[in-house]
Amino acid sequence: MGSQNRKQEAVDLSHHINVKSKSRHPSPLKEIIKFMGYDGMISLAGGLPHPSLFPLEKARFDCLPPSASLGNESAETDLVSLNLGRGLSPGDLDLTQFLQYGTGAGNRQLIQLAQDLTERVHAPPCDYECLLHPGNTNAWSKVVGLLCEDNDFVIIEEFTYPSAQALWIPLGIKAAPVSADAEGILATNLRETLENWDEKSRGGRRPRVLYLVSVGSNPTGITISAKRHKEIYQVCVEFDLVIVEDDPYYFLQYPGYSPQAEEQPYQPKSTGEFLKSLTPSFLSMDTQGRVIRLESFSKTIFPGLRLGYFIANPLFTERLLRATEVETQDPAGLSQAFTLALFNQWGVDGYLLWLQSLQYQYKTRRDWLISAIYDQFTVVSAAKSPLPTVQGYVACLQDKAIGKLRPVFSFVDPEAGMFVWSKFYFGGVSRFAELEAQSLEDPEQAFAQELWEAMVAELVLLTPGSYYHAWQGPDKISTKARGADPRSAFFRLSFATPTKEQIEEGVKRMRKVIGRFWEATS
Amino acid sequence: MGSQNRKQEAVDLSHHINVKSKSRHPSPLKEIIKFMGYDGMISLAGGLPHPSLFPLEKARFDCLPPSASLGNESAETDLVSLNLGRGLSPGDLDLTQFLQYGTGAGNRQLIQLAQDLTERVHAPPCDYECLLHPGNTNAWSKVVGLLCEDNDFVIIEEFTYPSAQALWIPLGIKAAPVSADAEGILATNLRETLENWDEKSRGGRRPRVLYLVSVGSNPTGITISAKRHKEIYQVCVEFDLVIVEDDPYYFLQYPGYSPQAEEQPYQPKSTGEFLKSLTPSFLSMDTQGRVIRLESFSKTIFPGLRLGYFIANPLFTERLLRATEVETQDPAGLSQAFTLALFNQWGVDGYLLWLQSLQYQYKTRRDWLISAIYDQFTVVSAAKSPLPTVQGYVACLQDKAIGKLRPVFSFVDPEAGMFVWSKFYFGGVSRFAELEAQSLEDPEQAFAQELWEAMVAELVLLTPGSYYHAWQGPDKISTKARGADPRSAFFRLSFATPTKEQIEEGVKRMRKVIGRFWEATS
Repeated sequence: MGSQNRKQEAVDLSHHINVKSKSRHPSPLKEIIKFMGYDGMISLAGGLPHPSLFPLEKARFDCLPPSASLGNESAETDLVSLNLGRGLSPGDLDLTQFLQYGTGAGNRQLIQLAQDLTERVHAPPCDYECLLHPGNTNAWSKVVGLLCEDNDFVIIEEFTYPSAQALWIPLGIKAAPVSADAEGILATNLRETLENWDEKSRGGRRPRVLYLVSVGSNPTGITISAKRHKEIYQVCVEFDLVIVEDDPYYFLQYPGYSPQAEEQPYQPKSTGEFLKSLTPSFLSMDTQGRVIRLESFSKTIFPGLRLGYFIANPLFTERLLRATEVETQDPAGLSQAFTLALFNQWGVDGYLLWLQSLQYQYKTRRDWLISAIYDQFTVVSAAKSPLPTVQGYVACLQDKAIGKLRPVFSFVDPEAGMFVWSKFYFGGVSRFAELEAQSLEDPEQAFAQELWEAMVAELVLLTPGSYYHAWQGPDKISTKARGADPRSAFFRLSFATPTKEQIEEGVKRMRKVIGRFWEATS
Repeated sequence: MGSQNRKQEAVDLSHHINVKSKSRHPSPLKEIIKFMGYDGMISLAGGLPHPSLFPLEKARFDCLPPSASLGNESAETDLVSLNLGRGLSPGDLDLTQFLQYGTGAGNRQLIQLAQDLTERVHAPPCDYECLLHPGNTNAWSKVVGLLCEDNDFVIIEEFTYPSAQALWIPLGIKAAPVSADAEGILATNLRETLENWDEKSRGGRRPRVLYLVSVGSNPTGITISAKRHKEIYQVCVEFDLVIVEDDPYYFLQYPGYSPQAEEQPYQPKSTGEFLKSLTPSFLSMDTQGRVIRLESFSKTIFPGLRLGYFIANPLFTERLLRATEVETQDPAGLSQAFTLALFNQWGVDGYLLWLQSLQYQYKTRRDWLISAIYDQFTVVSAAKSPLPTVQGYVACLQDKAIGKLRPVFSFVDPEAGMFVWSKFYFGGVSRFAELEAQSLEDPEQAFAQELWEAMVAELVLLTPGSYYHAWQGPDKISTKARGADPRSAFFRLSFATPTKEQIEEGVKRMRKVIGRFWEATS
């Protein structure tokens, strides 16, 4: 997988590999492959179907150029064609290799490309390897299979993508959640959690894995700041944690929202400036080899590719390759072929230009949503809000009765990704007070559900925040049991898919429902 | 996933679902999808990237027609083009859906196609569903995750594909091997194994899963006969086993070898006759819903597709879908798009015609290998062989000293798949006698290794049979400890990839090495 010169050696992290992963052996069939390459060897050993028996002869993919004006549907764009055929002359991209079984390690040129990109973007200080995988869902599944024992605890953000958790809930694994502010999870909280870990009362050993979507997190939209990155990394060194950096939104970083600004036309930066504008990753500061980075093309090319790659300590990629051999084999050949052909056509610089255009698109969409919130609500900065310990901005209604602002929900302006995470405040809402008086187990959840249903009835769909609660076991589900702030609940708003008009109309509908509940004050 | 009318209901098999699989819950995010479809709904809930931001606009695949004359490289064939674009009119195949995230269940039309094929080929008596998966390697991994507990025993053929085992060895799972004759594993042995199962001495509960590559098995080439299929199924009913039918070579069935026959030109049968010529599957006789069939396009279209499907009791597919959501998501979109477009172009009948052409190719290649063995050795039928309990054919050398035939290896003429499995007899070979006299732990393995190395030196590569031994734990590795026939060992010969000339030269080289060892009699 190609070596990188002058890299630091990783510290010994072999104790992080779990019992099952340790006991994997390479397939003897992979051993025999090297003999097939001997000069003049006649192999009666292979179990591969003969490539002349594959019905696909040529593939052509017509693609946008990296400079395409995205989102401007009326613009005519000249497409570039990627042509793949069988048995081309050396140097050309031969389709045959992508139709055949692979070795598990993935196409070599694609691996090399992953390394080139890694050096350009992260320049990791420590020795690493890249290994292809079929998307971050599967990558995370393989990492859990590498590092976690049954009934372990994993450190995650307080709010985390549910499928990442649904994977390990059947293994008895639980979350040890750490709360975040606008700059990401709090290193102090992380240290506290680890320092005070009591195996007995917790019912499991101290966590060894930190799982984070560190940029434009799903659902919170938070991007971990450069300073916070360093603080968190330091705690992980201190307490010997492996950091799993699941970072599909990394290239979708953009500047913050400014209410007064006119819509800026798209103007790409130089590649160097573009790369400099990105927050540093954990990988870029990993002097010990304790970061496993999950890269995905799902958000930058398209999700149906089911293609991405691990960047990790060779100690880990070797074990992940063993799992790949028996669990998935190589990612799909057409996905590998398309991606490699696209990069051959665009170049790495072309890809980085394409990413700038994507960034601009997501920034524009983020602006649509936040502008719509500004249009429908009075938005004040958290500092000016009547609420304690709130971050970012607060969307308020003017309370006619008392002539004052009533806070409804707060949100952090996302500087990456696709989501605005909002925290709703139920204090003073009469319907909530009614529910609270009924001595329900979880009045917050009950009211959040009513609110959500009322919005559905008004034909606007948000994602309930409850979907993203860290799974701490069946006894820690209610707002109170989780120790969450009382009289509040979260919703996730996505700006990835709807049009500007839909976003404006959607927020108007939200406002209507909110008005009904919030103006009826108790 | 579409229902099949007038099917029998499955018996209750819910006790077969293991503890971890039972505790999987559907993702709440999947729940919300149904609200997105409401008339007039504005969704701020989706986390999907906007399809206008995918760079791929059109794909074209140029393919062979199903009637192509395979293996005839000089023949010019008119290719058929599969064209896919974005936002086509309804009815056409729109590329966009394949570029986006799926729901885990796979494309509906492709699922329908899988069902149509299943009805045409197997007409299962019991209610079933089809669920896409990214290849049989992953499918088997998901089935182990569905049915097996750690430290279970799984019933397999005495010789089984090593990656199928490498998957579960880290889970502490062991094989309970059942021996086979030319018609497949012996139902009597299977019953005996189950009847006499002693949990204490075995250290685990009675097996509940039978894993078989039932047609053209890798490595043994054995196809389970219709009669044997029924006997095995009956034992599985009696002892409540789930049958996992991993059947990638099902469509590569062909008539047996006849030494005198001239090479027959390719003449396709009618589709009906073709289907009638195939041995019945376990699925076709599954009146209880206890068969999980793993279908793959790897051997019939191409392996790089990483696409296949489960056919199983809806009780099982529902749990497998839950695993799919968190472990892999849908198979790659381009693979799904290509396969659906190919079927739309070829039709199911076209595909079945294509399969006949493949069959003929593999039959031809099988004939090349066996003819080469006939050319280099004196082949006698097992009945006429001086060896006891041997099946199929025996390749012998003329022993000049005693003027008699000396048996070297036996093989069963494969009537499906890609492999000839050969059992070598070491009795009377002086080098083997030397090794035996050295009181090695496993003289058979030691001599097999020497023989294999001598062949490598002569530039012909076989696959050692030891790769395929059923894994019964580290204390049952040697020939003696496994209870295998003394003074023998196996090799697998594949005829899938080499040319006729390579096969002839390869067997000639084998003969040369064999001559050196076998003619030097003790």
